[in-house]
Amino acid sequence: MAKAIPSRSEDYSLWYNELVKKAGLAENSPVRGCMVIKPYGFAIWEKMQQYLDRRFKETGHENAYFPALIPKSFLSKEADHIEGFAKECAVVTHYRLKSDEEGKGVVVDPEARLEEELIVRPTSETMIWNSYKNWIQSYRDLPILINQWVNVVRWEMRPRIFLRTTEFLWQEGHTAHATKQEAIDETYQMLNVYALFVEDFMAIPVIKGVKTESERFAGAVDTYCIEVMTQDGKALQAGTSHFLGQNFAKAFDVKFTTNEGKEELVWGTSWGVSTRLMGALIMAHSDDDGLVLPPKLAPIQVVIVPIYFKNEDLDKIKEVVNPIMVQLKEKGISVKFDERDTYKPGWKFAEYEMKGVPVRLAIGPKDLERGTVEIARRDTKEKSLLPLKGVVDQVVHLLEDIQTTIFNKAKDFREKNTREADTYENFKELIEKGFVYAHWDGTVETEEKIKKDTKATIRCIPFNRKEEEGRCMVTGKPSKSQVLFAKAY
Amino acid sequence: MAKAIPSRSEDYSLWYNELVKKAGLAENSPVRGCMVIKPYGFAIWEKMQQYLDRRFKETGHENAYFPALIPKSFLSKEADHIEGFAKECAVVTHYRLKSDEEGKGVVVDPEARLEEELIVRPTSETMIWNSYKNWIQSYRDLPILINQWVNVVRWEMRPRIFLRTTEFLWQEGHTAHATKQEAIDETYQMLNVYALFVEDFMAIPVIKGVKTESERFAGAVDTYCIEVMTQDGKALQAGTSHFLGQNFAKAFDVKFTTNEGKEELVWGTSWGVSTRLMGALIMAHSDDDGLVLPPKLAPIQVVIVPIYFKNEDLDKIKEVVNPIMVQLKEKGISVKFDERDTYKPGWKFAEYEMKGVPVRLAIGPKDLERGTVEIARRDTKEKSLLPLKGVVDQVVHLLEDIQTTIFNKAKDFREKNTREADTYENFKELIEKGFVYAHWDGTVETEEKIKKDTKATIRCIPFNRKEEEGRCMVTGKPSKSQVLFAKAY
Repeated sequence: MAKAIPSRSEDYSLWYNELVKKAGLAENSPVRGCMVIKPYGFAIWEKMQQYLDRRFKETGHENAYFPALIPKSFLSKEADHIEGFAKECAVVTHYRLKSDEEGKGVVVDPEARLEEELIVRPTSETMIWNSYKNWIQSYRDLPILINQWVNVVRWEMRPRIFLRTTEFLWQEGHTAHATKQEAIDETYQMLNVYALFVEDFMAIPVIKGVKTESERFAGAVDTYCIEVMTQDGKALQAGTSHFLGQNFAKAFDVKFTTNEGKEELVWGTSWGVSTRLMGALIMAHSDDDGLVLPPKLAPIQVVIVPIYFKNEDLDKIKEVVNPIMVQLKEKGISVKFDERDTYKPGWKFAEYEMKGVPVRLAIGPKDLERGTVEIARRDTKEKSLLPLKGVVDQVVHLLEDIQTTIFNKAKDFREKNTREADTYENFKELIEKGFVYAHWDGTVETEEKIKKDTKATIRCIPFNRKEEEGRCMVTGKPSKSQVLFAKAY
Repeated sequence: MAKAIPSRSEDYSLWYNELVKKAGLAENSPVRGCMVIKPYGFAIWEKMQQYLDRRFKETGHENAYFPALIPKSFLSKEADHIEGFAKECAVVTHYRLKSDEEGKGVVVDPEARLEEELIVRPTSETMIWNSYKNWIQSYRDLPILINQWVNVVRWEMRPRIFLRTTEFLWQEGHTAHATKQEAIDETYQMLNVYALFVEDFMAIPVIKGVKTESERFAGAVDTYCIEVMTQDGKALQAGTSHFLGQNFAKAFDVKFTTNEGKEELVWGTSWGVSTRLMGALIMAHSDDDGLVLPPKLAPIQVVIVPIYFKNEDLDKIKEVVNPIMVQLKEKGISVKFDERDTYKPGWKFAEYEMKGVPVRLAIGPKDLERGTVEIARRDTKEKSLLPLKGVVDQVVHLLEDIQTTIFNKAKDFREKNTREADTYENFKELIEKGFVYAHWDGTVETEEKIKKDTKATIRCIPFNRKEEEGRCMVTGKPSKSQVLFAKAY
């Protein structure tokens, strides 16, 4: 097994990086902070896209495409937007190279300087609301429900593959509505689309809530989010949905005439998930032998490895395996038969464990005699010998079981590592071990003090937290409900 | 009908621009040369993507993602590549903005200057072959068959929506092989995937051939292409497939150990089609009333417009229409029922004609009495009254017929506008009217003279042109086969 990676307990961070590389998911590129997503990693991302895209369309959205290059002046039209985050970005200043006069490759042509610099989109609110201004005149033009799947660039000083990269892939939904309530409903609806996806497909339990002012998207009135726990007890924001109020409509002067002939500003939302979800997926389920994939997102759900010494044996194995493959495919299950003679079965077993293939079947000459097959599940590593007859139903059942089992395991883990703190002293101790619910006085100052003292942030004010009278653990001021604290990726 | 556009004979160029806008396909953005692809246009592009992506996967390719930002030095590693075209591009020189000290928005932070400039990818051979260097050691690692769907930027001085834009969307396949023959086979295979797609789905006949040296992709050994004719008799290159030889392997030092332990350079191909196909689609079939879509690519294949004055009538129409809609959907046909009361039937008819919806059904109270429905086909504008019973089968039949009819129409048009020239005088006259086959001596000089005299270029040396002894129409030198000339988009 050439492919071993460090264990989580040894070095969690190195475990993650090596796993990403050795499972063939992605690698760093020569451009710092930008990653190459390799075919196996991209196949998982495509499965995420397919499901989400279908859900977006079922909820009435259409895809479109807006330019990747945004005039610099657009970014400063919405004051909070530019203050908040849009400054660390790739700036295009020239539009031509020319041959170096000394014959050494190419240099930037100084005569091809742009009058106004262009920014590679860090997000597209400004470009899109600039278009909406021309698309919206009357209430008849509303709502506009648009999404795009694109690359974005935000310059990262401390990049981390999938989790925080200078360039990443995402989808960004941008909607425009005639009423405040409709925009708020949309914001919740899309948060729920994300939450269901992460729980049902990624098999990761989420906490839904609203961000505090300091963690809010720059330009939003409210940011709703889903937060998940990684195996080192940290929080990872897996998706956000923003109620923009009329902020971008104001900045880009987007008004409409109501049914009654009145002129009003349009209400907006935006929402997105990114290749960061890949990081969440890896961190939620994987173990010291590599990736563990939920069956619903596994590009290969079942791998069949023949054990043979002579080619006649391989032929016999194929005869038995072929009808099983056909039946699995008919049930919509993706199956791979790995008959390469360049690698030994043991090597292949380790390889598919590293890649997180949920179910492995192994079949050799003895199995042919006995009419059996060895079945192994990736999540628990349990192996058993099954009669060949009925193996297809067993596989179907096992895939369902794995999907449920890893969700429950992640949920148990989160519950074991979620605590409540009554005092700030107690909080400081508990926050090193996982999520902590605690009372907070609602001020930015207290939030900042906690962050400075402990590096923990308020991940969200959870929707489903019961109201209870309490006192802020830091200032003792009254609080109506506990909020969720964690150190975060 | 507020949506009228100029006729083709009046102003072909304006007809195209207005059609793109009024059919809701795309529009220009505030960044010169960059377009916004609107939902209806994007839905057509998505249908193209779906089919092509399936074919790429069926032919063994996998999707991946490589960074959009390429170090400047990469571009000059393959000498022909940089000489040929890679100079007109977006150059990123800085990675941060900062607040203007005078409080006027943001300025580029001079302290955030990149050590080496980054180029927004104009194409990805350099970035990808730089990765392949690390991925390929042995013959066991080959072939590598990768594709990516991405945006690219090539600065355009004379942009034209869909046809020539500074930013466009495309797919780029990049493959690596152990033998020359395998790479050549791949190049042909992908050209044929494109040709079949354009003929069977876009309903446009193509001419397959090889480019002359001066029209070849910079860095390729050979460029194969498919060329289509637009309604103004010009040629439009709809797709290219490049045999790269060992050029990029040499430039990026990509070698592999053969089965026999020898070290050899890897062979490469690349191939792509882009949103330019949207321009081809529009120009091939559309008429003075708007877009004409081949049914296989139409986001809405059938629209049903109710004709009613009273709401009871609408209810009765719905009762009849609903089962028809169900049956059409069961057959995989996309159908829209437009019951908006904000627009009149005549307005809707014009709207769906503009949008190129292949089949329109109209049904009113009289139809209910008689058990009839009016069916109209977009391509020929023929209308007829049909019995409601059996309308689903009629629609299915009609969609197939439209697909064939518009292909044949485009083919007839091309044949009528394709001629042979024996003398240069004759050529100069004929080239104003369409495609011209003529003998050419095979030199760059003659090709350039023809281009200078007539603005026509050699579109390709067609694969299926019979060999015949002839003499170059310009120089009288011997030639073995006629080549295809045209003015091109």
